[in-house]
Amino acid sequence: MTDLILHEYARSGNCYKIRLTAAHLGIALQRREYDIMQGETRTPAFLASVSANGRIPVLQIGDFFLPESNAACVYLARESALVPDDALDFADMLRWMFWEQYNHETCVAVLRFWRGFVGEANLTDLQRAQLPGKVEAAAAALALMEDHLAARAFFVGERFTLADIGLYAYTHVAGEGGIDLSPYPAIVAWLARVAAQPGHVAITA
Amino acid sequence: MTDLILHEYARSGNCYKIRLTAAHLGIALQRREYDIMQGETRTPAFLASVSANGRIPVLQIGDFFLPESNAACVYLARESALVPDDALDFADMLRWMFWEQYNHETCVAVLRFWRGFVGEANLTDLQRAQLPGKVEAAAAALALMEDHLAARAFFVGERFTLADIGLYAYTHVAGEGGIDLSPYPAIVAWLARVAAQPGHVAITA
Repeated sequence: MTDLILHEYARSGNCYKIRLTAAHLGIALQRREYDIMQGETRTPAFLASVSANGRIPVLQIGDFFLPESNAACVYLARESALVPDDALDFADMLRWMFWEQYNHETCVAVLRFWRGFVGEANLTDLQRAQLPGKVEAAAAALALMEDHLAARAFFVGERFTLADIGLYAYTHVAGEGGIDLSPYPAIVAWLARVAAQPGHVAITA
Repeated sequence: MTDLILHEYARSGNCYKIRLTAAHLGIALQRREYDIMQGETRTPAFLASVSANGRIPVLQIGDFFLPESNAACVYLARESALVPDDALDFADMLRWMFWEQYNHETCVAVLRFWRGFVGEANLTDLQRAQLPGKVEAAAAALALMEDHLAARAFFVGERFTLADIGLYAYTHVAGEGGIDLSPYPAIVAWLARVAAQPGHVAITA
């Protein structure tokens, strides 16, 4: 099998998605760590050889560099039980993965980064001005997930798929962004179901 | 074939992606228009019956409602020449579609919406404060596309795929957001190649 190298910052939920997918599939990944807090993904060497977009994760597949966490998860999990065969379920899985990147990562993950990694005292004025909007957007995203999960065990087709992995990554550490999950009992129960799946690994693993 | 109904706001590039995909495939779509400038996707009826996320587009497939433009495009184009068979090319296509939603739509499309639809005079103070960052992000996104297209005809695997459709949608109307594309000759040539594909339709069609 082609060598797989994950270029990552291990605390990033986007990187964790790929590790969690690989763990469920029993796929071995080599790991290369870059400290985004020190700008290590914006160096000329990284931009020239890993990704012109200056972001992690990037999954290196032989000599091909694949950015975007969800694209990497689909690549690894193609033809596995984590990806539905049914065309509509497959599209619905992608729907939740796109929704996560646009409506969830941009607030739930950003709050964790700003409050838990950078620290509120170190935010720019513009970032600080955006905080109330991010808190509101996170509450709306979590409310939508809560409603969806109220009558379902998993996000798509009643089975564990990449949609669950993608949404678990930042939801389960939402507390690091100052978000209290206790008003969302269906989410809390779903997080426990995801963590109980055989093959599960923690973000700190 | 199951009835397909596109719930949309026709000027939205995200809605246009789905129409353009359908046009290339010769698939007929019924169309239902909602005026997002009048809040028609945030009414209780829309939230309850079309999408709890309060956004268009939503592709209705029989009695199933599929939000997220790129998920709808993949659903329509599955098993067509617009979607690569090769696993790595398929993942790379998704990579550009995820990149578009996170790094391109959030600045190129937002600038078009703020400047071309809402009007700069009507922006909130917080939106106005974000303008310089959006302009900078748009320039970075376009520079990355320009570099990628310098030696390629299309984004993935040297053929026209959903990655091109997804990126064309807001790039070809970037001027409505005050973005001058003349510094990006490879993008300008690629836009012309996309518009010359058999089956192409305009955003105003």
